[in-house]
Amino acid sequence: MNRLLVFQSDFGLADGAVAAMIGVAHDVDMDLKIYNITHDIAPYNIWEASYRLFQSVQFWPKGTVFVSIVDPGVGSDRKAVVARTKGGHYIVTPDNGTLTHIKKFIGIESVREIEEAIHRRETSEYSHTFHGRDVFAFTGAKLASQKISFEEVGEKLKEDSPVEMEVGGVFKTQDSIMGNIDILDVRFGSLWTNIPREDFLSIGFKYGDRVEVSIKNGPTLIYNNRIVFGKSFADVYVSEQIIYVNSLLRMALAINQGNFAKAYNIGTGLYWTIEFKKTIQ
Amino acid sequence: MNRLLVFQSDFGLADGAVAAMIGVAHDVDMDLKIYNITHDIAPYNIWEASYRLFQSVQFWPKGTVFVSIVDPGVGSDRKAVVARTKGGHYIVTPDNGTLTHIKKFIGIESVREIEEAIHRRETSEYSHTFHGRDVFAFTGAKLASQKISFEEVGEKLKEDSPVEMEVGGVFKTQDSIMGNIDILDVRFGSLWTNIPREDFLSIGFKYGDRVEVSIKNGPTLIYNNRIVFGKSFADVYVSEQIIYVNSLLRMALAINQGNFAKAYNIGTGLYWTIEFKKTIQ
Amino acid sequence: MNRLLVFQSDFGLADGAVAAMIGVAHDVDMDLKIYNITHDIAPYNIWEASYRLFQSVQFWPKGTVFVSIVDPGVGSDRKAVVARTKGGHYIVTPDNGTLTHIKKFIGIESVREIEEAIHRRETSEYSHTFHGRDVFAFTGAKLASQKISFEEVGEKLKEDSPVEMEVGGVFKTQDSIMGNIDILDVRFGSLWTNIPREDFLSIGFKYGDRVEVSIKNGPTLIYNNRIVFGKSFADVYVSEQIIYVNSLLRMALAINQGNFAKAYNIGTGLYWTIEFKKTIQ
Repeated sequence: MNRLLVFQSDFGLADGAVAAMIGVAHDVDMDLKIYNITHDIAPYNIWEASYRLFQSVQFWPKGTVFVSIVDPGVGSDRKAVVARTKGGHYIVTPDNGTLTHIKKFIGIESVREIEEAIHRRETSEYSHTFHGRDVFAFTGAKLASQKISFEEVGEKLKEDSPVEMEVGGVFKTQDSIMGNIDILDVRFGSLWTNIPREDFLSIGFKYGDRVEVSIKNGPTLIYNNRIVFGKSFADVYVSEQIIYVNSLLRMALAINQGNFAKAYNIGTGLYWTIEFKKTIQ
Repeated sequence: MNRLLVFQSDFGLADGAVAAMIGVAHDVDMDLKIYNITHDIAPYNIWEASYRLFQSVQFWPKGTVFVSIVDPGVGSDRKAVVARTKGGHYIVTPDNGTLTHIKKFIGIESVREIEEAIHRRETSEYSHTFHGRDVFAFTGAKLASQKISFEEVGEKLKEDSPVEMEVGGVFKTQDSIMGNIDILDVRFGSLWTNIPREDFLSIGFKYGDRVEVSIKNGPTLIYNNRIVFGKSFADVYVSEQIIYVNSLLRMALAINQGNFAKAYNIGTGLYWTIEFKKTIQ
Repeated sequence: MNRLLVFQSDFGLADGAVAAMIGVAHDVDMDLKIYNITHDIAPYNIWEASYRLFQSVQFWPKGTVFVSIVDPGVGSDRKAVVARTKGGHYIVTPDNGTLTHIKKFIGIESVREIEEAIHRRETSEYSHTFHGRDVFAFTGAKLASQKISFEEVGEKLKEDSPVEMEVGGVFKTQDSIMGNIDILDVRFGSLWTNIPREDFLSIGFKYGDRVEVSIKNGPTLIYNNRIVFGKSFADVYVSEQIIYVNSLLRMALAINQGNFAKAYNIGTGLYWTIEFKKTIQ
């Protein structure tokens, strides 16, 4: 642990909820350095929370403690846990699927259940809806400041934990590869797929190739076009479309200085599939 | 004072105004730790500023200095003040009602008027519209870094200060309790009332009871239904309505994973009243 | 350099991109103090990025390092640079016009091109679209933590660098002054012009004068009215219009507690001109 504590939630930043959590954390230890990933996760969207952790955790120093709270089941018997990743980071979160991407693509070494009888803020016994403040921020701060060790969080969970959401597969043929549209690069409307760069390259695509792209929502064809595979946006004209390798080394689609998702009303999730296919040039 | 400096305003984060304030503060002292409550207070909305302070200040370490700037009267004779709360926190703000909730529900020990002749940034004499940067951030930073004491801020104001807004009352009968809808939990559309948990319980309501709820806008009935009083959202189905105790120990209403305020077009303020009444089971 | 590192971009804060940059920076040095100007620059809007730097950089301690990434040309031959301003601040940015206002109104002492072969994150060789994380944050962090000196960034660029955008002129007659509407005070809808306070005063306008204001979009007259020149908003009624000196000592227009830009559909840029003219009282 290195005294870095990083928050994520679906609370937004328009009220005092996030500030209350940061206050609680500093009340545990004045010397923490506290940051945020985002608090604009769509309300209750565990998938997005999981993806944003995958997108950012790996770039932080080892020992950084993350607190992620998208918690539609607050007050249910969902567990409150701390996971130690194979990259040496700690994630404090309700165990509701938030650890899906980290587990699958980075790996989790060990998960412990927070023993609430010990790790709950004093005088919070009558509030049952803000575990972010009363349990997660408080426990995260104690861990980040080494007031407790990882072992002191609570009991180790068994092997098959944590809870995982279904993640789409990637399917190859000799001349094509298919996967899902996982998420948007929200601000720019680019489509981020679950297809890794190496798998895409293994089909034989090269920079400069025109590739046939089909996007379906369930069985319905939404988009079908040939697009150039480029290194970066500067390889195409402004307003031209491009296939590129995104910052997590997965395949992505963009309109250079435009918005691909809005242009074609494209969404994300398991029902949104995308296929890249070789064209006969 | 503990070198923690926490900002709040209605400036938004889309331009350079907040960053200018943080820069000014660090120019006073490099070792401050600077955070934000929110800068998304609705423009000129002093009520909301006052509520967000109440929602977050109490969770920070003693000695933390807050700077809150919602200042429609900048340049008028409204006073610039620093308040010391009974919880040991300091709030630097225009005295325009922003201290209402802190005064009423936490208590204020003492208020001093900022002596602008001393505590105004040098070279700021031709700008008259950004006291946030030139007076409040500058004074807050000097106070938080102990370059000045609370006493050196300026003259102590008399007993009945600071300025207070009207706050709605809570009225009980034998089988009902009535109050106001104070504010929304914005992101989730939940209604937060001014009715304290103990007052609600004193009517005899128990977890699991169905309670009759009436919401009026002035004389007009907007909503009338029976809702279960639950401990947390997990006590009801997704999409079901619930009465619960919020994180400030006041009564609140939500739709589990829905948006109560949007569902029924419900607003906030003194004209929005809510009544909880016993039902004959 | 003082270990303060301040980010700005058009990435938004809804995903993990900004957090990835902050993580990379802290991985370089745990003791940096990291802040943000804004990440809500409109996508690809270099003008706005340039203006927001001008609005905030000057208020930070000398030696602060800023990283500004609005980079539509990522992957092109646009240079990655670090500029040292005449105020003693450092700005790490793609050289695409982002330094325009700082150069013109504060001054730039020297610009060096980032030698990417040295100053690029290891293992980032397959990602070509996120120089913010892989080059700019990484280089900014090394500079802010004095792991490299300004000279070690790379070769000094020649005199006429950096790239500049066209900035509108200010034109005076005996009884009038004309300029552009540069940008909005977004949250409040106030118009910020490029006309400096001293130039405006040199026409002979005094506090309390009613001034004739004409606003044109290209050749088309959009607004024409007489408005009072006041010290601050408190000098006029709520809902009244006012000409005032903004926090950067330029002339501005507002509706007190209203939104001038929305009221009259007024935009910004070189085609939006404004004239202040003496009235015969």
